[in-house]
Amino acid sequence: MNKRVTVFFATGNIGKVEEAERIFKEENIPLLHLPMKLLEIQSDDLEEIAVFSAQKAWEDQEKPLFVEDAGLFIKELKGFPGPYSSYVSKTVSNEGILKLMSQIEDRSAYFKAVIAFCNGKNTLTFKGEVKGEISREIRGTHGFGFDPIFIPEEGDGRTFGEMDISEKTAISHRTRALRKFAEWVKSTDSSKFI
Amino acid sequence: MNKRVTVFFATGNIGKVEEAERIFKEENIPLLHLPMKLLEIQSDDLEEIAVFSAQKAWEDQEKPLFVEDAGLFIKELKGFPGPYSSYVSKTVSNEGILKLMSQIEDRSAYFKAVIAFCNGKNTLTFKGEVKGEISREIRGTHGFGFDPIFIPEEGDGRTFGEMDISEKTAISHRTRALRKFAEWVKSTDSSKFI
Repeated sequence: MNKRVTVFFATGNIGKVEEAERIFKEENIPLLHLPMKLLEIQSDDLEEIAVFSAQKAWEDQEKPLFVEDAGLFIKELKGFPGPYSSYVSKTVSNEGILKLMSQIEDRSAYFKAVIAFCNGKNTLTFKGEVKGEISREIRGTHGFGFDPIFIPEEGDGRTFGEMDISEKTAISHRTRALRKFAEWVKSTDSSKFI
Repeated sequence: MNKRVTVFFATGNIGKVEEAERIFKEENIPLLHLPMKLLEIQSDDLEEIAVFSAQKAWEDQEKPLFVEDAGLFIKELKGFPGPYSSYVSKTVSNEGILKLMSQIEDRSAYFKAVIAFCNGKNTLTFKGEVKGEISREIRGTHGFGFDPIFIPEEGDGRTFGEMDISEKTAISHRTRALRKFAEWVKSTDSSKFI
């Protein structure tokens, strides 16, 4: 275990930084924010996107850093909106997803988050998922994006949008990926980071 | 005018090559196909995507080459599916677009194509558009992607899917971008190409 290691979180999203800081603090790992716009490629595979972004960010910054990418994958829509969740949320929005899901009985979906860590030599990934289903109406005002139309399996029937931040992050895909990554950081020799 | 110049079309899509060959033949410009999977970034801006892909392809190949990217932009869906048309076509499909457009009166949309040419020093872009609207049902079996739900303004009310290939390419966004590019190639000194 090495507490003096510092990892950098490369992202332009301050909300993601706050979530990561909370988890890293629990584990006593210093975290620094590298504010930057990531270069993201088009791909059906979240992992491929995160790995590319992390390597590009490393080329820019030459610091041991990680990026995080996430998406909502709806079974009956062949994984849509998947890696393009942020764009689809801005354009089609929750109303549009509900329209697409009208007359569809199987409402299975999952949120997935991928963290890619790059030290210039290796790139490692850490994944988190939360299973659930698409609601039949928009419910709740917490969170962002598709939270008001996603009902996690492990909950009590409320959408992520109806849960406060601590309830959501207790089971969220992002938390799960962050915890796996934090575990790895704690258990890894500091020479791996530079 | 310089007829000995050869330009390379970097694409993994043989359909695009055939369309370009026809137009370049008319202009008596030799065209070679560079079969490759392009690296595409995520962006709301088709031009930014094409420029990046062309520059990346040049880094790989070091030949004067162009790439082409296209998308369908629907006004009332804030431009969706736009740069992600190919992914949306595979997942949400034409049925999904019609669901999203249910109860929407303004059905305005346009197809846009962007060609980016890169010679390692400069990157130039050429654009083509065709205006029209989203049909209320799927019509026709020609073409691909969103052709069966797009009615071009300059036509007779049929969708692109109801037109044969020569009717469609006479007015298509891709043809328009290709013609602009071919004009530029013809009028440009060969030293610009290497």
